[in-house]
Amino acid sequence: MPTLCRPAVAVPEHTISMAETLALARRLHAAHPQLGLVLRLIENTGVRERHLVRPIAETLIHPGFEARNAVYEEEAKARVPEVVRTALGSADIGSRDIDAIFFVSCTGFLMPSLTAWMINNLGFRNDTRQIPIAQLGCAAGGAAINRACDFCLAYPEANALIVACEFCSLCYQPTDTGVGSLLSNGLFGDAVAAAVVRGDGGVGVRLERNSSYLVPDTEEWICYAVKATGFHFQLDKRVPTTMAMLAPALHTLAASHGWDASALDFYIIHAGGPRILEDLRQILGVEASAFRHSRGTLTDYGNIASAVVLDSLRRMFDEDSLPDRAQGVIAGFGPGITAETCVGTWSA
Amino acid sequence: MPTLCRPAVAVPEHTISMAETLALARRLHAAHPQLGLVLRLIENTGVRERHLVRPIAETLIHPGFEARNAVYEEEAKARVPEVVRTALGSADIGSRDIDAIFFVSCTGFLMPSLTAWMINNLGFRNDTRQIPIAQLGCAAGGAAINRACDFCLAYPEANALIVACEFCSLCYQPTDTGVGSLLSNGLFGDAVAAAVVRGDGGVGVRLERNSSYLVPDTEEWICYAVKATGFHFQLDKRVPTTMAMLAPALHTLAASHGWDASALDFYIIHAGGPRILEDLRQILGVEASAFRHSRGTLTDYGNIASAVVLDSLRRMFDEDSLPDRAQGVIAGFGPGITAETCVGTWSA
Repeated sequence: MPTLCRPAVAVPEHTISMAETLALARRLHAAHPQLGLVLRLIENTGVRERHLVRPIAETLIHPGFEARNAVYEEEAKARVPEVVRTALGSADIGSRDIDAIFFVSCTGFLMPSLTAWMINNLGFRNDTRQIPIAQLGCAAGGAAINRACDFCLAYPEANALIVACEFCSLCYQPTDTGVGSLLSNGLFGDAVAAAVVRGDGGVGVRLERNSSYLVPDTEEWICYAVKATGFHFQLDKRVPTTMAMLAPALHTLAASHGWDASALDFYIIHAGGPRILEDLRQILGVEASAFRHSRGTLTDYGNIASAVVLDSLRRMFDEDSLPDRAQGVIAGFGPGITAETCVGTWSA
Repeated sequence: MPTLCRPAVAVPEHTISMAETLALARRLHAAHPQLGLVLRLIENTGVRERHLVRPIAETLIHPGFEARNAVYEEEAKARVPEVVRTALGSADIGSRDIDAIFFVSCTGFLMPSLTAWMINNLGFRNDTRQIPIAQLGCAAGGAAINRACDFCLAYPEANALIVACEFCSLCYQPTDTGVGSLLSNGLFGDAVAAAVVRGDGGVGVRLERNSSYLVPDTEEWICYAVKATGFHFQLDKRVPTTMAMLAPALHTLAASHGWDASALDFYIIHAGGPRILEDLRQILGVEASAFRHSRGTLTDYGNIASAVVLDSLRRMFDEDSLPDRAQGVIAGFGPGITAETCVGTWSA
């Protein structure tokens, strides 16, 4: 059975604290009619600090889409190799044992994908399958886990590498001043993450069953406006209320596996924001501590898009408190609105 | 074993002939120092006609990346449903029998992907897996077939839908006047295509084995420059010579399956351009007629990117001349430089 091994996560060296974020919002949007609401929303995120690929002064200046995307490429090439090497080491395999690379990233666009550069520069075989996914946003972390699992089901001896490369700060759009945009400016952070799914062997989460779910008619709730200035993230104010619509998908998946989604041993949930975590926790009827890894990611790094689930999972590995055969769920949420969910068992 | 059923292909109603393309190049680039070379290269493509989502006069005017991408979305929503319905009909299944949608397209960018809209509007189940791939370019047709096959190997009762949506005319960049760009302006066409891979049942090509191959250190030979004006296709003059580097991948795949790549019954090859087809034909040592379906696509529609292999395959279905158990190959080529290849058997 495919096993998701310990993820590696790296965050950039530049940081912005909650206090700095609030001060910045006050300074840049002093005359904004809803500034008070924006500040409350940012405070409510509980994000203590975020990491950025470039210093905040540079991040605030939009140099044009072309220059932005060049920074994305440069930073990706600088930061991805380390997490890849660490993830391979944790899975106890080498780059030449990898049969497929699932590269998920929605904050820059390269063709060919970074997968080609990785194969050329990081020692992967030239017959490695490349599966770059740019359009699933935050849900892509869960999607990459699920598709890597499927690949290993198809080829039980195979190994798949997942890379999530999210530099959300490179999608900062100074001219977007709606409440959703200003909240996003205070919520999203940068990170790169990688993890291996081994078809055979390995220690971690045995991936037993997965599912996708699209909430009907919510395409416009989370989306990009594609403009000359790049990708403009658009967040509808109804998004924080989506857990009532997504939670049934978790129950359905768990039930189809003979499990109860409200009585699992671990929960790795996309930390899109505090309301999402709190609503889902209440709907599932689980204790606050059940979501501690997701909250840890949100508090320490902010919403790091598709890398959230990998970072939360990394925290679970670090805590190392689960008994063998503990049962749990990993759930990514993102545009569509889509949930990419899997259930699995901890193998110590 | 997964079976790739009859593809459906649709081309837009607006057309531009070879004569019109040449006249346009003469008019727009009268003072170009390499106009003679450009005209010869375009003539050598052998492309008789191409189809465009908008009239040529409108296509020539760049309205900005945002407006272009809005046209992409509008045209995709207008043109994809019909090929999807036809492909489902040819596979003798309904939309609710589909478990995964592989949506490949490199000529526009939507987040969420069109897969979300398709699920909401074309009757697919809400738990349909979405796999949108934008960064494999022309190779994505082969990649979609291979990944759909893999998905059905993982879930042998499942069905996957492939959609290739390529409006290359929406990547026309009037300011790009290098020889590679002017040749591309005379080579690429628009089309939408769809096909079903059935895990169980169905008539068509039984997909027996697949492989990917990246030619080392050719990342910059085919790539996008991402700019405020959108995606700028960049074609290195070495690209037409790549078949010597890619052909061994076909031989390796065939040999690993106990077959001889030079002695197959059918060849569905990405028709990137005339040189690619001719070189590969000579390297494999097969007759010109072996590549007739690919040549048909190139002649009638131009290079329609990821849709080429599906259209060439559709021509093979239409011809209906293969005996049961005929052996062949399907090969997509694109940026990376990447080959996505599979071998399979015709089931009449």
